Amino acid sequence: YGKNTIKFLRLHKEGKKHFVKEVEVCTHLRLTSAQEYLEGNNSLVIPTDTIKNIVLVLAKKNGIPSLEQFAIDICNHFMTTFCQVMYVKTYVQEVPWQRLHENGVPHIHSFICVPDGIRFCEAEQCRNGPLIVFAGIKDLKLMKTTQSGFEGFYKNEHTTLPERHDRILCGELFCKWSYGECKDFDFDCIWNKIRECILEAFSGPPDCGEYSASYQKTVNCIQMLVLSKVSQVQVIEVVLNNTFYNVLDMKNLGLTNDKEVLIPVEAPYGSCACTLGRKKFFEA
Amino acid sequence: YGKNTIKFLRLHKEGKKHFVKEVEVCTHLRLTSAQEYLEGNNSLVIPTDTIKNIVLVLAKKNGIPSLEQFAIDICNHFMTTFCQVMYVKTYVQEVPWQRLHENGVPHIHSFICVPDGIRFCEAEQCRNGPLIVFAGIKDLKLMKTTQSGFEGFYKNEHTTLPERHDRILCGELFCKWSYGECKDFDFDCIWNKIRECILEAFSGPPDCGEYSASYQKTVNCIQMLVLSKVSQVQVIEVVLNNTFYNVLDMKNLGLTNDKEVLIPVEAPYGSCACTLGRKKFFEA
Amino acid sequence: YGKNTIKFLRLHKEGKKHFVKEVEVCTHLRLTSAQEYLEGNNSLVIPTDTIKNIVLVLAKKNGIPSLEQFAIDICNHFMTTFCQVMYVKTYVQEVPWQRLHENGVPHIHSFICVPDGIRFCEAEQCRNGPLIVFAGIKDLKLMKTTQSGFEGFYKNEHTTLPERHDRILCGELFCKWSYGECKDFDFDCIWNKIRECILEAFSGPPDCGEYSASYQKTVNCIQMLVLSKVSQVQVIEVVLNNTFYNVLDMKNLGLTNDKEVLIPVEAPYGSCACTLGRKKFFEA
Amino acid sequence: YGKNTIKFLRLHKEGKKHFVKEVEVCTHLRLTSAQEYLEGNNSLVIPTDTIKNIVLVLAKKNGIPSLEQFAIDICNHFMTTFCQVMYVKTYVQEVPWQRLHENGVPHIHSFICVPDGIRFCEAEQCRNGPLIVFAGIKDLKLMKTTQSGFEGFYKNEHTTLPERHDRILCGELFCKWSYGECKDFDFDCIWNKIRECILEAFSGPPDCGEYSASYQKTVNCIQMLVLSKVSQVQVIEVVLNNTFYNVLDMKNLGLTNDKEVLIPVEAPYGSCACTLGRKKFFEA
Repeated sequence: YGKNTIKFLRLHKEGKKHFVKEVEVCTHLRLTSAQEYLEGNNSLVIPTDTIKNIVLVLAKKNGIPSLEQFAIDICNHFMTTFCQVMYVKTYVQEVPWQRLHENGVPHIHSFICVPDGIRFCEAEQCRNGPLIVFAGIKDLKLMKTTQSGFEGFYKNEHTTLPERHDRILCGELFCKWSYGECKDFDFDCIWNKIRECILEAFSGPPDCGEYSASYQKTVNCIQMLVLSKVSQVQVIEVVLNNTFYNVLDMKNLGLTNDKEVLIPVEAPYGSCACTLGRKKFFEA
Repeated sequence: YGKNTIKFLRLHKEGKKHFVKEVEVCTHLRLTSAQEYLEGNNSLVIPTDTIKNIVLVLAKKNGIPSLEQFAIDICNHFMTTFCQVMYVKTYVQEVPWQRLHENGVPHIHSFICVPDGIRFCEAEQCRNGPLIVFAGIKDLKLMKTTQSGFEGFYKNEHTTLPERHDRILCGELFCKWSYGECKDFDFDCIWNKIRECILEAFSGPPDCGEYSASYQKTVNCIQMLVLSKVSQVQVIEVVLNNTFYNVLDMKNLGLTNDKEVLIPVEAPYGSCACTLGRKKFFEA
Repeated sequence: YGKNTIKFLRLHKEGKKHFVKEVEVCTHLRLTSAQEYLEGNNSLVIPTDTIKNIVLVLAKKNGIPSLEQFAIDICNHFMTTFCQVMYVKTYVQEVPWQRLHENGVPHIHSFICVPDGIRFCEAEQCRNGPLIVFAGIKDLKLMKTTQSGFEGFYKNEHTTLPERHDRILCGELFCKWSYGECKDFDFDCIWNKIRECILEAFSGPPDCGEYSASYQKTVNCIQMLVLSKVSQVQVIEVVLNNTFYNVLDMKNLGLTNDKEVLIPVEAPYGSCACTLGRKKFFEA
Repeated sequence: YGKNTIKFLRLHKEGKKHFVKEVEVCTHLRLTSAQEYLEGNNSLVIPTDTIKNIVLVLAKKNGIPSLEQFAIDICNHFMTTFCQVMYVKTYVQEVPWQRLHENGVPHIHSFICVPDGIRFCEAEQCRNGPLIVFAGIKDLKLMKTTQSGFEGFYKNEHTTLPERHDRILCGELFCKWSYGECKDFDFDCIWNKIRECILEAFSGPPDCGEYSASYQKTVNCIQMLVLSKVSQVQVIEVVLNNTFYNVLDMKNLGLTNDKEVLIPVEAPYGSCACTLGRKKFFEA
């Protein structure tokens, strides 16, 4: 297969107001042929330069109404234009530009980059198969300073971890979900709703939180809430890359440390993932 | 000299409400002696492990009332405790955890990482000299999609840049300022005020913006506004690492591109910096 | 599933001579149960801390005779020790420390890091399935300054790429191959042989090189040479992330540039991959 | 001031043999004027685009005989061409392409990237001042597995570090030196000689090594050896960013660990630097 990544900015105006979308688009093609590998015959090869041009032309002509619609447009273009394309996948990721506000007033042409979770989507299609759309959020860093523990786990001679009922839960979330038949979805609205579900399931009620018995349980809570609140989601995958914080032992410095000073274990050395669908769940 | 970096999290509670500060502290020491280099005599050397312990003990005992106060405490400790220390500098940088809100209600123990400009500060002192405090913001990415140009510049046979009166202005800002005598400043409040000044000077009035004749002019506007509005600032340095966007020529694709599709020049290949003080002192 | 990454250094001595292996080991487990996700029942969960301990204990007891043998040992340990483990995968990557030489004499205890291609391996096993071993090299950056072109490709209205018969071919290689039944292989020796095949197939004879009609053709040459020369390899996957270099047009600077000054297109915006097996199986 | 970074590849041939230099050049200008900041008057401003063109034109015309000569050429060009330039500094860094060898035979046009220490140089000049040339090596990672300790250091109530006489010494070296009057130096030859001195001073004799009493002492040994062996070096700065390795305590796993398994402390939390000149040394 061949793969091509292009980053660009799409600007448009409504009256004096400016709108900006900066995206990174990665397009993946697999051809029906193998002669370019075996014989160096390039007659069916679509150069990455052409792929790039097509993405830019579509952006110019259609704009980027939503990341998902743009990915769908690209897939459709390749499938209908090139009969040698057997499979196409398009990944679109957004640079998180947000409109600046001054004392609550939105600015007509100034933006600030706020990377608190990156939005992305994917559309893929095999020749003669359905077009499938995924969307997701990544690099979303969250922390709970209490209401988290890990107890009652399996123990043997290699176990050194103590049981804890009040630890820090911190990690970087990756969530990706698939839509079923995508007819006229308001992708922006759904995405924002799912983001809210994730934050709510992670943190619990604002006045007291909700106890998490493990990273696994938190992952499951997120999946359950999204599936129950957002009917368009068919399957949801959640990966939580943990950052562990150890309460520093300060006894040899003559101090008792009551979960006040904690040291992050820099290398994110744990990760927990699960994929959950509508009917019967399956682990991944 | 010796340098030591330590990252940790300081947690405290007021009633049921949790407060979190995660910081990276880098401490720099220069000793009066040279014997450790020349003779391998370590008798005056303060191990990095000890430096780390001191930072953690101070965090445990005093908390982190503000980044600046914490840096001042560390400097003071080293100067008063170790007579072999000739110079100390402490740099403190914050992980941008923000309290989560659900439907406007603040959560008592959940946080999200929002890196839209990183806060840092520095305190430094030579033995027998004054303690000087700096503060700053870095990695602040801003964009204006109009009201920016670059014309009338110096030209010779190596000039290929066309004049432009409506380009994109985009870059990553670094600002660092020094305070004069720091008696009882509300460092948090001042820092927020300066951040607002930067955004305002960069973008101009929300309904129309303000024309910038160059990156240099924007840098100067920021400095002038901060110096005029925040009396505690003595000197302010601003560095703007530019991201250039080229309007893509789509003629060979049969299209006219009216500043709708732009390609970022990935390598941030320009930078513009200036330091401005209160009187008339101008240097770069 | 759960995942755990641990980085460590394994040191051993033969007489006065020191040997060092620094590795990053990532272990992946999938359990037969789902109760930890659904009910927060952790009784079968193996904490990442325990996984880490096991990896370290095995390194201490067995050493790291080769990356592959170490990965096999880890897989075997988890499969035989924990009946709740349904699937285990272990990835091992090496920090490329090389013994220092002074005037050709090897140093008994000093090493230099030389990252000209990173060695890694993987072992994986499903319960009741065979243990499969993979090995590979990644981050191997190669360049040919001639004997490379790209002509006769598919063209339509979105094609702007000119045909070229003398371009730069440059990229970062990733190769991963699987071994069949691994009985008493000399994994170090095989790995070195494959590395040599890759370099030879990429560059051609030292005195003249060999023309490459495309990235795809180069990928295929590498695969064919490895499969023909190394009988232990069953399937080989090659990914080539291209760096494009454009010959700079210097006409507007009054100069002709005969492929002397070239600008890299920073974003690695093309990639070409293929998996090739022994019989006739061809897939990408 | 203004700064501009440009990365490019310079190719040349001698008969059928190809030679390649890929460099990153960063040019720094300070002007005599301030009007571009204060008034937005750009009439003396040299656009970064022009700076870039000049660097490329010089590379095309002169080639890159050595990094240092190329940096000197650039400085000279700006000083003699633009009277509004008050100060110029040029930094040049090399991508470490090395010629491929097959069975000892050098390949005429194939190269491999071997980043075992990056070569760089700097030339700077103030108007009416001398042109000063620096050269250096960075990102050079070295390790000694024995013959290193740290004992007899300063102790107080915050000391927790135990004394050690057989630890791992590992770090990333940065060395930068200045040349005096640079008349017809063979910069390539000198650079290679200095690299050898660094390796030799770090590691000691190949059959036994040499004991290092501290990071500081190793830094000093490197400086002393370079100054004694390479007469063209006037001042040498060495920075050693340490990676610490802790011998893992395996007692709770029922094992004694005799410096066999060590864990790197990921965050490089110590650094030691010194600048040494010919006459009287001074610390920095």
